[in-house]
Amino acid sequence: MNGAEALMKSLVGLGVEVCFSNPGTSEMHFVAALDRVPEMRGVLALFEGVATGAADGYARIARKPAATLLHLGPGLGNGLANLHNARRAHSPIVNVVGEHATYHRRYDPPLASDIAATASAVSKSVMTVERPEELIPMVAATFAAAVAPPAGVATLIVPGDITWNQVPDGSAAEPSSQPPVLDAERIAAAAAALRAGGATLFIGGAATTRRGLEAASRIANAASARLLCETFPSVLERGAGIPAVDRLAYLGDFAVMQLAGSKSLVLAGADDPVAFFAYPGKPSRYAPEGCDVVTLATPADPADLYLEVLAEELGASSPPTLQALSLPGLPTGPLSGSAVAAAIGALLPEGCIVVDESVTTGISAPGLTQGSPGHRWLTLTGGAIGYGLPVATGAAIAEPGTKVIDIQADGSALYTIQALWTQARESLDVVTVLLNNQSYAILQMELNNVGAEAGGPRSRAMLDLVPPAMDFAAIARGFGVDAVRVATGEELVEQLKRALAEPGPHLIEALLPKGIS
Amino acid sequence: MNGAEALMKSLVGLGVEVCFSNPGTSEMHFVAALDRVPEMRGVLALFEGVATGAADGYARIARKPAATLLHLGPGLGNGLANLHNARRAHSPIVNVVGEHATYHRRYDPPLASDIAATASAVSKSVMTVERPEELIPMVAATFAAAVAPPAGVATLIVPGDITWNQVPDGSAAEPSSQPPVLDAERIAAAAAALRAGGATLFIGGAATTRRGLEAASRIANAASARLLCETFPSVLERGAGIPAVDRLAYLGDFAVMQLAGSKSLVLAGADDPVAFFAYPGKPSRYAPEGCDVVTLATPADPADLYLEVLAEELGASSPPTLQALSLPGLPTGPLSGSAVAAAIGALLPEGCIVVDESVTTGISAPGLTQGSPGHRWLTLTGGAIGYGLPVATGAAIAEPGTKVIDIQADGSALYTIQALWTQARESLDVVTVLLNNQSYAILQMELNNVGAEAGGPRSRAMLDLVPPAMDFAAIARGFGVDAVRVATGEELVEQLKRALAEPGPHLIEALLPKGIS
Repeated sequence: MNGAEALMKSLVGLGVEVCFSNPGTSEMHFVAALDRVPEMRGVLALFEGVATGAADGYARIARKPAATLLHLGPGLGNGLANLHNARRAHSPIVNVVGEHATYHRRYDPPLASDIAATASAVSKSVMTVERPEELIPMVAATFAAAVAPPAGVATLIVPGDITWNQVPDGSAAEPSSQPPVLDAERIAAAAAALRAGGATLFIGGAATTRRGLEAASRIANAASARLLCETFPSVLERGAGIPAVDRLAYLGDFAVMQLAGSKSLVLAGADDPVAFFAYPGKPSRYAPEGCDVVTLATPADPADLYLEVLAEELGASSPPTLQALSLPGLPTGPLSGSAVAAAIGALLPEGCIVVDESVTTGISAPGLTQGSPGHRWLTLTGGAIGYGLPVATGAAIAEPGTKVIDIQADGSALYTIQALWTQARESLDVVTVLLNNQSYAILQMELNNVGAEAGGPRSRAMLDLVPPAMDFAAIARGFGVDAVRVATGEELVEQLKRALAEPGPHLIEALLPKGIS
Repeated sequence: MNGAEALMKSLVGLGVEVCFSNPGTSEMHFVAALDRVPEMRGVLALFEGVATGAADGYARIARKPAATLLHLGPGLGNGLANLHNARRAHSPIVNVVGEHATYHRRYDPPLASDIAATASAVSKSVMTVERPEELIPMVAATFAAAVAPPAGVATLIVPGDITWNQVPDGSAAEPSSQPPVLDAERIAAAAAALRAGGATLFIGGAATTRRGLEAASRIANAASARLLCETFPSVLERGAGIPAVDRLAYLGDFAVMQLAGSKSLVLAGADDPVAFFAYPGKPSRYAPEGCDVVTLATPADPADLYLEVLAEELGASSPPTLQALSLPGLPTGPLSGSAVAAAIGALLPEGCIVVDESVTTGISAPGLTQGSPGHRWLTLTGGAIGYGLPVATGAAIAEPGTKVIDIQADGSALYTIQALWTQARESLDVVTVLLNNQSYAILQMELNNVGAEAGGPRSRAMLDLVPPAMDFAAIARGFGVDAVRVATGEELVEQLKRALAEPGPHLIEALLPKGIS
């Protein structure tokens, strides 16, 4: 068996079922192997950032890794931004990158570059196969690195001759998994902090599941503690029947207010909260001075289990506070960001997945969907824009039959717009609601936040997406996706109902007032 | 003066006039500085690969660096593939990457990553400004590294607080330039090899200008030597009135034939030729066994001057062989790759710039444009596809008033399709001839070349761009570019004439038979 087939077979043996691919010459044997390993589903992307973002979305929903297949250093480079987001989401990904044949690298052919250096910034582990007998052990080690808590991106670099030469028989061993052992000292310290009063319970990671949220809510009720969730959770379960939790604000002034007066901050699956960016004269850390930071569970730990044990420790016997069903009214008249959010809040189907890359225009989306039927909410964990369309693509592949709604800002959509084609090719149930406000509105806000003297026409032009005005519906149709433009609440509601009722991908371009709405 | 303004002013002082930008929060002070430094033209890209590719195209035509402005590690990652091409083209670029404020990095905020590691694979020089007084000297050093032969990408990482705090006055000193000193021993060795007979003169870099080509042609005539050009020159001057030169073939079997029987290979601005990829059982180096490799000039040297001195040394007094004007007939009937090439060959205006990312469908393009009026031909130096649209964008900005024709494969176009918007915004005279053959045809060929057993439906699907069929004209119009689809030679000729006569960008989508045509 050649190396390409052996790699695909070992991945299948480890439970990897999907390979998001944008291959080149050095990956042709992997492509050929797809015919001999039918258990591996190859999903073609037109751009590597789509493949890596889809692998992130897949991992968040399937809770296991997909593989990627990228072409040499430049292909990896194109996939880097969404690997960065996956790294911050703690999404396991087996990131396979083709390389020139071992004996060919020394000639420094045009496409040669330092792939390991490029991979290092986003990877927990980077390995390069040098000899055929290393392949299967390195597949196993890469898989193990990807899934070891906290999960993340593990990169395996495979030279062409390794793929076409025979490799020794064998199969990759699954990493041994131990039942989690909880740290009693951390539980005691967290309990003490909560009993002392004035605590804020700050959750993330594994704690943002229904199970974690129920325990967190019981604890907050018993200890009269504030309950907050990290700003950008990987997957937040929410909606009717699930405990509601406020997320820490993106804007520092609000985040500082949310934490003001906390005597202690109990971390459960989240890191000590810090500013997304530095701003002149503003703090980097958000916890108030003198606030005691107590780590119950790191992002690597089973934070949901820790919370359950802590709830018992605190004798938190009253039930969690569950969100009641409460739908916003359907919007009418000219569109705004909140009108779009209301339409989604009113119509989203139970069990659906929402991918939120709405940036400024989506500021009211969490509030107006809070009482909607239960759903999962995915966010931009790493801040590298262009995640929404690919993550929605991967999420839909992870869970066929579930509707995925991508609330998508215009500027961000343009980094990975090619994902629409993969959605069409794979007939995925993704509804993209594209918020066209003709600007990088977030940067108009940030220009002021960082204290830059704005106002001149040349700087403003750098934050404007007109002229020329883009027609996202035309672009989507060009990629094979059913697409319409809507300018009123009534049109949006009609088209959103249709898109949610029909199979396959749809894009609804909501025409908003220019700038922040 | 704050750091952002000081950096922009120093770049202007060094002759940098254009900054290709896709900024984020950490770069807002640079954006604000554009209003105070009107000599710097900010050009907005919707994706970083457009900005870096445009900087490559600009450098190839202007023969001086532009700056880029990228947002942290993920923004740099998105720009990496076209920086790789620029590195291989020896295009000078001052690659400015924003970073978190120096004091904020330790908190590892979501967008933090190892920017220097990411930059290292494509950069001659990577510097991070840590203190205000380092800024101007590092701007000077980065500029000097970018332009020092062989030119390339030099990266300057600038933390946010450096941009908004005051920096000491000063201006960046221009690097001192010495008149080139030619190495007499190399000239003597090359002359001896050519006098011995059976030599092949292999040119690249600075030798592919009219001046270098005229000297090379005189030498080849005087010494009865073969004359060949590297496979992927940065800029090749060609057409009527300029010596014609064959390029070394991309396909190894042909390349080996072109060099067969060479007793010596005299390198002038080119490297010893090697295979683009390794293939089982095929050689990595192309020069025949026993062929003596003699370096007259490396890619870092003024190869044109070396050739002129060598021509004198050889007493090559007869004039160079100039290409005669010879136009192909206009195509009629259904389109093919050669019909498209014939239309371009028949209609291309004197002095224009051709950006060739035609891949398989453009195989006849060099031949059918060889006798067209004089023009410059740009190629995919680094092999990272997605270079055509951005490089055409930058070339048009470097030379207003000159028509730029981008012969563009469909699969490759999709990596950086967002460049069309910048062409529309800046009203650039770029005519994109998009070759839609609905497939990664090059990979269909490469699948066989690497000896992979093709043929299965699952592997073939990975190389197909249908279903769904893409409508590139619709996508281009969505980005604000005038676009049409053509299916016959007559339609193509009519639309190409119109596009070349009108100002601003145009895209002509040529509907070709599926696969290799």
